[in-house]
Amino acid sequence: MVKNILVYEKDHMKTLPNITKNFQDWYNEIIYQAELVDQSPVRGSVVIRPYGYAVWELIKKDLNDRIVRTGHQNASFPLLIPESFLKREAAHVEGFAPELAVVTHAGGKKLEEPLIIRPTSETMIHHMFARWIKSWRDLPLKINQWANIVRWEKRTRPFLRTTEFFWQEGHTAHATYDEAHEEVLTMLNEYVDLAHSVLAIPVLTGLKSESEKFPGAEKTYTFEGFMPDGKALQMGTSHLLSQNFAKVFDMKFQDREEKLVYPYLTSWGTTTRLIGAVVMVHGDDKGLVFPPKVAPIQAVIVPILKKNADNQEVIQAAQAMADQLKADGIRVLVDADDTKTPGAKFYHWEMKGVPLRIEIGPRDLKESVAIVVDRLGLAKSTVPLDEMTQHVSQLLSTIQKTMLERATQKRDALWFKEAKLSEFGKKLQSQNGFYQTGWCGDAACEAQLKEYQATIRCLLDEKLFDQCFACTKPSKQDVLVAKAY
Amino acid sequence: MVKNILVYEKDHMKTLPNITKNFQDWYNEIIYQAELVDQSPVRGSVVIRPYGYAVWELIKKDLNDRIVRTGHQNASFPLLIPESFLKREAAHVEGFAPELAVVTHAGGKKLEEPLIIRPTSETMIHHMFARWIKSWRDLPLKINQWANIVRWEKRTRPFLRTTEFFWQEGHTAHATYDEAHEEVLTMLNEYVDLAHSVLAIPVLTGLKSESEKFPGAEKTYTFEGFMPDGKALQMGTSHLLSQNFAKVFDMKFQDREEKLVYPYLTSWGTTTRLIGAVVMVHGDDKGLVFPPKVAPIQAVIVPILKKNADNQEVIQAAQAMADQLKADGIRVLVDADDTKTPGAKFYHWEMKGVPLRIEIGPRDLKESVAIVVDRLGLAKSTVPLDEMTQHVSQLLSTIQKTMLERATQKRDALWFKEAKLSEFGKKLQSQNGFYQTGWCGDAACEAQLKEYQATIRCLLDEKLFDQCFACTKPSKQDVLVAKAY
Repeated sequence: MVKNILVYEKDHMKTLPNITKNFQDWYNEIIYQAELVDQSPVRGSVVIRPYGYAVWELIKKDLNDRIVRTGHQNASFPLLIPESFLKREAAHVEGFAPELAVVTHAGGKKLEEPLIIRPTSETMIHHMFARWIKSWRDLPLKINQWANIVRWEKRTRPFLRTTEFFWQEGHTAHATYDEAHEEVLTMLNEYVDLAHSVLAIPVLTGLKSESEKFPGAEKTYTFEGFMPDGKALQMGTSHLLSQNFAKVFDMKFQDREEKLVYPYLTSWGTTTRLIGAVVMVHGDDKGLVFPPKVAPIQAVIVPILKKNADNQEVIQAAQAMADQLKADGIRVLVDADDTKTPGAKFYHWEMKGVPLRIEIGPRDLKESVAIVVDRLGLAKSTVPLDEMTQHVSQLLSTIQKTMLERATQKRDALWFKEAKLSEFGKKLQSQNGFYQTGWCGDAACEAQLKEYQATIRCLLDEKLFDQCFACTKPSKQDVLVAKAY
Repeated sequence: MVKNILVYEKDHMKTLPNITKNFQDWYNEIIYQAELVDQSPVRGSVVIRPYGYAVWELIKKDLNDRIVRTGHQNASFPLLIPESFLKREAAHVEGFAPELAVVTHAGGKKLEEPLIIRPTSETMIHHMFARWIKSWRDLPLKINQWANIVRWEKRTRPFLRTTEFFWQEGHTAHATYDEAHEEVLTMLNEYVDLAHSVLAIPVLTGLKSESEKFPGAEKTYTFEGFMPDGKALQMGTSHLLSQNFAKVFDMKFQDREEKLVYPYLTSWGTTTRLIGAVVMVHGDDKGLVFPPKVAPIQAVIVPILKKNADNQEVIQAAQAMADQLKADGIRVLVDADDTKTPGAKFYHWEMKGVPLRIEIGPRDLKESVAIVVDRLGLAKSTVPLDEMTQHVSQLLSTIQKTMLERATQKRDALWFKEAKLSEFGKKLQSQNGFYQTGWCGDAACEAQLKEYQATIRCLLDEKLFDQCFACTKPSKQDVLVAKAY
């Protein structure tokens, strides 16, 4: 038995790289150590292990409820798309061509036309929309698909950029431009609320510049997250496709005046990348920190066991507490493993990011109390057993709120306002960060950011700067410049 | 407006082929007419439309709860599998080779090793298991994956056999043969209970013969459904893989005696095929009939609207009733479209298989009642509004039960007991059915069934027959012979 304890403690007490000094290494270590993912034998694809997949299931449940509540219906479209479909919209195929995985043989034969594993489903879904939309009465058509996607990325990193990933893609068709535009903003707002109230991640929204928008879209709205290393993460997008795709897929409907016209289309999506955002934004030197709403385990109960003693009473009390918490909808686990020390367990569940730990020993039990410790280090408190459920619920909600506040503070500390690239370009080289500045709107000025591996993350509604960051022309509106994942 | 009514009625009042005389045509028509699926531009792949996908979501929810309750954890493994992986287990690759879809190019280059779109994930998951299983403490390992699968089938039919389909695949590893065998039976029993209590489909379970078992398995248990046209449908399987795959993937663990040994593996799965089973088993000449537990809409409320009158009161009453039913967890829809006649609506929702219809007109409203009609034709009743929720709940549960009874009767009427193929072979040619008979266990005798396009669906626990159906050798146990989808 001693042997196993040692193995356990050695396995899980591997030192994590310092998160401040070496954020990348910390990320690349914690996702494996916490068993969120594992490496797969296929280049750029990961295995999402149960602990990581549970986070995705929680995000998915919350987001799916939003998608249904806003009047969309789930459906499913083929994984494989005829190559010719992707070629119909010129900008679309140009944008995706370098990343495609191609099925050339199937059923023992060479295919007449190669099939592409979907890098996104606009072309397939628009083909179907053209079959379904005949009259104004068929609109709006609001469909969503939860699916796996393949894009052959050159550099990959688990969750953030993988060859295969999971997402939802919403696709809608509307009778008017305004209605389509409203849809794009409605879903963008749902994403923002998901980020804020569920993932505890402050995000910024805005339009993408022409060079960064979705291939084939008229407008792309993004919601960008701010990582603690000063790099931005595009967490998802909402596109106004307008009538481009409707035209190439010959999607027409008879309007109320009996004229044949093209509908206005939208698409919007977010991905398993959100898990990576949660890991990066909230993690610390001890490991993961999960916001309670997406924590696979919200509270772990550790009965304090005595050697060579009958621990049944304490274990039973822990189990009874767990049953009570579960009845209140709290995701709870009792760690009664008698081969591990309490210290090893504390370390383990902190590393795994469980928001609350509850310790109960023989002495606590006599006094009908237990010790509650939170992962953020807010306070350690002695709680009467009969107040436990209420206490835990309140504490989880406090933690959820505090995590958003802390993440917002971290972001603000990295948010700089700078007039000229000649100034902040130097800073970007030594310290990443989010640089609010002015822009004339010219692609040539935007292109100068490449030298710093930075991009315009989005256009802002504010206008603090009168002049472009690169030239002397007037600025149209502020933009946010940063390096990005 | 008149025009639209006509369009609607014409669209939805297409005559269905007679279900008794022409079951295949009926199936091929109703799945499109009821908007469960649509044809896609990719050979053998279908689009599952919202009404069909909702059925899958309901099945998935119920089955996922069972999978979690029995101690399994969801995870996700790559879509693409290196070709060499599939080749490791000889029987496995031989079984799947003719059906593979192969990615040869990706990211603009030819791949060094082709990748296969998973036809099942044993090889990928066992590769990962070999990384994760080191000690007896890591066992049992019980993983499930919800995924899409591609098998290049020669003949396809929506839901029943498609190139791409959805399923769950459970994969587990155990320290002993007995424990693995128990797992196989536990999950088989969950499937059976799902079929009986949720899908209202009576199924039979048993072992597959050697020639029909899963490529690479030691034993395959099946659960077979009985379709009204006398053909069997394999609804899912549960495999005892034993140690074969563990050996080829070098999956070893240190047992309690510190010896390195191979674990015993299982896998089990069921698919979107279940939707096809529900359609076939319960449908009638009017269209679909959904068992309440998987009905996307359990009750449709049709307010009876008067022409040129103010219908607000009736519509509000219908809406209030819907809110009440929803609060009780009933899936309900109000069809208040004033461009359709009540008759057209009745026809439409009967065709769509909604278990209950509630009609409420101005006169009913005055008397505080509504008319409840069930899709099975059990009874039409006048129900006081304040008893509606209770009445609907009870009626849905009666319908659920009655549907299983009716399906069982239909099956029994097609269940024949026959000693010799020379007799029932002739019958099989004129009338499909399920033929219980004896079998010596020889593959040569089994092969004689091919002439009748029939197979041994499974081995039975009964032994009514002393002699083999084909030869004069003694029968080991009864078997069930039928044609199959």
